[in-house]
Parts: sequence; structure tokens; C-alpha cells
Amino acid sequence: MKLAVMGAGAVGRSVAKLAGEYGHTVTALADSSGAVVDADGIDVAAVLARKRGSGTVGDAEVATALDAPYDALVEATPTTLSDAQPGFGHVEAALERDRHVVLANKGPVAERYDEVRALAADSRGEVLFEAAVAGAIPTLSTIDSLGPERVRAVRGVLNGTANFVLSRMAAEGLDYEHVLAEAQDLGVAEADPSFDVEGTDAALKCVILANVLYDGGYTLADAEVEGIRSIPGSALELAAEDGRTVRLIGEVSDGSVRVGPRLVPENGTLAVTGTTNIVQLETEHAGQLNISGAGAGGPETASAVLADVGRLPPVD
Amino acid sequence: MKLAVMGAGAVGRSVAKLAGEYGHTVTALADSSGAVVDADGIDVAAVLARKRGSGTVGDAEVATALDAPYDALVEATPTTLSDAQPGFGHVEAALERDRHVVLANKGPVAERYDEVRALAADSRGEVLFEAAVAGAIPTLSTIDSLGPERVRAVRGVLNGTANFVLSRMAAEGLDYEHVLAEAQDLGVAEADPSFDVEGTDAALKCVILANVLYDGGYTLADAEVEGIRSIPGSALELAAEDGRTVRLIGEVSDGSVRVGPRLVPENGTLAVTGTTNIVQLETEHAGQLNISGAGAGGPETASAVLADVGRLPPVD
Repeated sequence: MKLAVMGAGAVGRSVAKLAGEYGHTVTALADSSGAVVDADGIDVAAVLARKRGSGTVGDAEVATALDAPYDALVEATPTTLSDAQPGFGHVEAALERDRHVVLANKGPVAERYDEVRALAADSRGEVLFEAAVAGAIPTLSTIDSLGPERVRAVRGVLNGTANFVLSRMAAEGLDYEHVLAEAQDLGVAEADPSFDVEGTDAALKCVILANVLYDGGYTLADAEVEGIRSIPGSALELAAEDGRTVRLIGEVSDGSVRVGPRLVPENGTLAVTGTTNIVQLETEHAGQLNISGAGAGGPETASAVLADVGRLPPVD
Repeated sequence: MKLAVMGAGAVGRSVAKLAGEYGHTVTALADSSGAVVDADGIDVAAVLARKRGSGTVGDAEVATALDAPYDALVEATPTTLSDAQPGFGHVEAALERDRHVVLANKGPVAERYDEVRALAADSRGEVLFEAAVAGAIPTLSTIDSLGPERVRAVRGVLNGTANFVLSRMAAEGLDYEHVLAEAQDLGVAEADPSFDVEGTDAALKCVILANVLYDGGYTLADAEVEGIRSIPGSALELAAEDGRTVRLIGEVSDGSVRVGPRLVPENGTLAVTGTTNIVQLETEHAGQLNISGAGAGGPETASAVLADVGRLPPVD
């Protein structure tokens, strides 16, 4: 397939780099700085070297990427709240051209899911977004196989940064500020970590899951969200005395979406450590399924994007 | 879709019972005692009540089920070694009629994979077998999404009976014979448990995985297999002193298939307890993925069969 990749962060760059191995051609790559388009396939290595040098992928306007010849648009620009732009506009442009869309960007399917679905209903293009929920973990494809109506609840650890902080606090007896600084040094937490530690990122993933399970209607405003900032190290020590620990757990069940710190058994399934994510599905006939793996990372998330691309039917 | 269900054990019965909920019609059900066929859909509840009473599902010859109108044949007769009959013959009959086949039976895809593939290549029918590897765990669909060539290794706990025995031995400090008797009382182990405790069942699953990863060529004869019968309780005690325990681990990597008792970290990912199974995939770009859940059970395995049925294209 011909791919237009929107966004040249870790995920967009990895999709562009790996596309050839999966038998695809990248005909356009764009980020906020500019775009490069070549109907025969751009020279990905050269373009990414240019970005490392000058900071821009190319001189063309971003809009030229949207007009490029492609079968599927890969939306990997940064997640934004409310209007979910510029991602939503990219999704709209592709669907109006009867092209497929594969999202790693959570914004459009968390904040404007019903609009995305309405656009898809009027398009010959399809919309897939496995990479938007827990990176490499095959969450949405598993729910699709089971049938969303047979999934009673989904819960899990859906943010690697928050999990790194909590598992280090518990393992080393350190407090939040100390571990956060360490995580920032390691590149696990961003300079402004609020999106991760306040639970917003995990909540967006849960909102997407709720939209899939309950046939739309959810945005971030429907989620009850509490972060990990105010957890004292002493709370983790107390939990440990009782064989338990604390994890930032997102949960979608009975029509509601909740994210917050929860006590879980110290060596239990949900107590993954470091940046690992886990998704736990309670199903109607198949019992409980647990899937853990990399919830973020360039190649890992790109792997989910390219799996989605592989599921798309040919464009007429 | 119209389904012919071959086999009326726990899995075949569950497939027949749940098919309607998934929008399918069971047009035939057969086991070694006989068959019942109705082009408009058999009365599953009545047929299963009859089987509970008289021991037979119907008076028709098994062959009439193979000639029934159906889109997909569900092969859920008992797994047999070497010639993999009668399952293989059922697969052959369906593919020669250009019908799809979904297997829960491991035999044909472990012992005669290359023949099954050759038959499928000459047929408009497709062959899927997610349920044959670790029941409800979405193993093959995940490998398919990743691309088999990007899976470096698969390992895991693939037999619930053996895992129940080992985890009880470790938790209670009991010896093999004692726990096996308990497992037999609970119905977790069969009267003749050799298939499970000698590693054969796990090995068959690994052979299927090897056939998928390496494009065929494997049978049980290619697997190096060691069971759990000779593990003394004292070995588990020694392991525990070192923070480890023993699990029956199947592994497919670098072209080889091995099953045997292995030391694993006591609270590590592979140390699932009870009858839970776990599959661990080492991937090229997506890191390590772990999927745990029910590796057996009627409804659980039927859920994987019906997910496969949902993936099949319409029959012309």
C-alpha cells in the first residue's frame, strides 16, 4: 500500500522506516514543519537525515501531503484534546478522498469518535486505531475477535511513565518527586509530565475503549480521572506490608470510565513493573485474558500501526 | 454461516450451543456415535439433551454430516497422533468441497500440516486453527498480525493440567502423585493423564506454532519432549529457596521445538498458577508480548473457534 505518514515524532518516523519491510511505500511524510511528497516513494532515510539536520522533513506545505497519492493515511501527530487538531482534519481529508486511516494519535478517536465514525460511514475508506490503545499490545484486534458485546470489562495499566514512577517508588522506597526526576533524566517522563502522571493519557485510552465497547458517545469529559501526584511513599510502604502495591489502573465497565491509583496484589497480574503496560479483558465466554507488553515506543507502536495497515482491504 | 460441527465433546458442544449467539446456524453435528443433519439448522438443545440421555447425537451416519450443507466445518474430534484421524479425513472432505475448516483438534495441523496446506491451496476454502493452540488465548491471530517472520521465539505454559500439578506441588509442598490424584478428583486431570503430564499436548501446540512460524515441515517427531512425572517435590523446595519455581515450558525458537520442566522466577511472568496458560512472544519490532488466559475449557475454546469463523470470507 501507499502510505501518507502525518507526524514525524518517534512513531511516525518508525512507521516510515519500517514500511518498506512490510511491503508498503511511503509517498508522503509531513510534520508541523513541512512535508515531502513523492508518488514513487520518498527516500525515507534521506528525509529523516534532513529532519535531524535542519529540523524539517521538507519544504512543501503540509496540505500537499494530504493531496498526495496514497491508499492509507497514518495519523501520528501529537494527541490534542477537545478539537483533536490537526489530527482530526487529516482523518477527515483522507476519508473524504475514500482513503483508509490508521491512527496512532488518540485525539480524534477519544474526543471526536462519533464524528470520525460518521465520516467513515460515508467513505469507502476504513478507520483502524490499534496503536492508539496501549501501543504494541493487541487490544482492539482481540476485542474485535471476541466481539465487543462479549467483553464485560477492560482494565489495565495503560501509561508506562506513571507505572515506571509507581513501581520505582515501591521498589526503592523513594518519593514521587525523586523518582519523577530520575524518570525525566532517563527520558521515560517528559519535562512536563502532567499528561502522564495526572492520568489523562490513560483516560484517553479508556475513552477509546469505551467508544469501541459501547458503540460511541464518549469523550474525556465522561471519564473520572485521578492521577498519581499526591501518592506519598508511605502509602506504598503501607500497601507492601499488606502484600499489595499501587498501580494507576484504567477501567471501563458498566458504561463508565475511571482512571486512578488502585491497590493491587504485589505479585499479581496487574502489578507489571517499569514501563510495561497490561490490558485485562473480562469476557463473556472466554474467561479473563491478560495481555502485557510495550505500551509505547517508536518501533513497538509502529508495529501496531503496520498490523492495522495489513488488515485493510485494497483501495479501489 | 452454516456450520457442520464434528465432535460433541466439551468444545464441539459449546460451539454448537454458542453458534446462534454469533449469528451462525448449525446444520450438522456428529460424533463417533452418529450424526444429525438439518439444512435449516438442527435443534441444538434437543440434540444435546438426546446425547446426554442415549449417548448418541443422532441416528445418521457420520458421513452424512460431511455431506450436509455448510460453509465451514468445525473439527473438534479428539486429537490423535500420526495419521490424525478421523480429523484429517473431515478436513480433507470439507476442503475438497471448497468449504472452510476451523480446527480445535490439534492432530491434523500438528501431524499433517503440510498435507492440510496442500489441500487448502487447491481449495477455495480456508483453514484456521486458533483454538488448537492455547484455547482462548489469541496466539495465532497475534502472530498473523505481527507477521510470522517477525516473531523470533514463542514460549509459554501450554498445558493447564501440568501447570495445575506443578503450581499445587510448589504452593502446598506436596508430591506429584498426591497432587495428581487431587487433580483427577477435580476433573482437571484425566484418568490417564499421560498426554498432559508427559508433555505431548504442549508439544503438539509447539509443533503447530513451528509450522506457522517456519512455513511447515514439523511433526511431533521433531519435538524434544520431557514431562513432569519425575520431578520430586524436593526440587520445587530447592527452587523456592532461590526465588524460583518449575513450570512445564514449551518453546519454539531458531527452528527447534522443545518442551520440558524449566526453572522460572517465582513471581515472574511465566509462573502462572492453576490451569492458566501463558504465551510469550519475542518479536522483531514490538518487544515482548505476554498473553495469559484459559488454555482449555468448552466455552473458552469455542470462543476461539467462533472468532476464527468470524474471520472467514463468505463462501461463494
